[in-house]
Amino acid sequence: MAYELYYWPTIQGRGEFVRLALEEAGAEYVDVARVRGVAPLMAFLEGQAVERPPFAPPFLQDGAVLVGQTAAILLYLGGRLGLAPADEAGRLWTHQIQLTITDLVAEAHDSHHPIAASLYYEQQRREAGRRARYFREDRIPDYLGWFERILAANPAGDAHLVGSSLTYADLSLFQVVEGLSYSFPRAMAQVLPRLERVAALHGAVAKRPRLRAYLNSDRRLPFTEEGIFRRYPELDG
Amino acid sequence: MAYELYYWPTIQGRGEFVRLALEEAGAEYVDVARVRGVAPLMAFLEGQAVERPPFAPPFLQDGAVLVGQTAAILLYLGGRLGLAPADEAGRLWTHQIQLTITDLVAEAHDSHHPIAASLYYEQQRREAGRRARYFREDRIPDYLGWFERILAANPAGDAHLVGSSLTYADLSLFQVVEGLSYSFPRAMAQVLPRLERVAALHGAVAKRPRLRAYLNSDRRLPFTEEGIFRRYPELDG
Repeated sequence: MAYELYYWPTIQGRGEFVRLALEEAGAEYVDVARVRGVAPLMAFLEGQAVERPPFAPPFLQDGAVLVGQTAAILLYLGGRLGLAPADEAGRLWTHQIQLTITDLVAEAHDSHHPIAASLYYEQQRREAGRRARYFREDRIPDYLGWFERILAANPAGDAHLVGSSLTYADLSLFQVVEGLSYSFPRAMAQVLPRLERVAALHGAVAKRPRLRAYLNSDRRLPFTEEGIFRRYPELDG
Repeated sequence: MAYELYYWPTIQGRGEFVRLALEEAGAEYVDVARVRGVAPLMAFLEGQAVERPPFAPPFLQDGAVLVGQTAAILLYLGGRLGLAPADEAGRLWTHQIQLTITDLVAEAHDSHHPIAASLYYEQQRREAGRRARYFREDRIPDYLGWFERILAANPAGDAHLVGSSLTYADLSLFQVVEGLSYSFPRAMAQVLPRLERVAALHGAVAKRPRLRAYLNSDRRLPFTEEGIFRRYPELDG
């Protein structure tokens, strides 16, 4: 049976990390809200009859299993899609990398929404200017530097974050580099050339046949100023 | 062999969620930096010879396994300490709850540090006043309301978040209620009386013999204005 992914239908957002894994694996899935609108999604969030309601999208249904939280969805899918190592320690390490990406993504969001997600950007523009400076100058280098370091430390080689084959963490790092490059082109032009391994991984993932086909399809939504990675030139220094 | 927990030695912080699980299970563990200082912790973060270096504390060493990210540590320990269900779907649900607590904890931190963790509170006090209002009025009720709802929806009864016995998620929700009550006593006095099940779970966890012994010991550090849950009366409305 096809996996059912529930996420907002008009943005990449956090759902994109799951979409990339499903697409790269060639898995059968339905992006529910893009096909049937957001009503079925809202029913899970608000329905009183749901035994294990997620706090927020994305969430995935696979038969009787309903799982929310991006990193938990990828933990669940990793082995099933052939995008995680077989051993427990390797799976945990892949998951740990994904959780660090989760932290980075939350900080990327808050770089334009430092006061409240429920307010418009324009209502927190001044604070965003201040927060984005620290995000750009300290946090992006901290996080991407860590990815560079763990690529270098991988005993199986620096082509992948974990072991010698592709995992969902590689796909997620690709998406992070895409998103940050969209949001902060000037800052990334300073940082990325110093991070050879991260840049190489990003390039290699983009060339994978299934990924490339997905990125060129209309299933891949564009980055916009409604998503997590937004381009506000005034936040890019 | 004893588990080795690496976390900052003077605060509860994120490490406390792991300490609570280890203490409730009566597990043998060493809180490394409290015994030997922070040098061994820094060696893992900065050492070039570490194959899988965590991005930040807390992290746990168990023989050859090194695992970082609070929720991943608890995922690893859950089954081993008897604090998670045996079935995959139940473990994933417990982990999903923990990841939602992780999100809440990050927002609690940012309520006093909305611009940068590297700045002092006093350097972002005005922005904190604005962010804390939304956290207090919207986010605390959103999150705690969700916990109340999933307690009510648990088919095994509302005494636990998952199934009919204690999991690490229950311990973590206890800690969240403790921390929010310390930080926002006025806001919590408004919210908590409407959340009977959350309040009852908090009370029941506090009475468990091992937990109570821990909370009364000098192993339990006090809440302070160096940790994640801080009391700044001006942020409590």
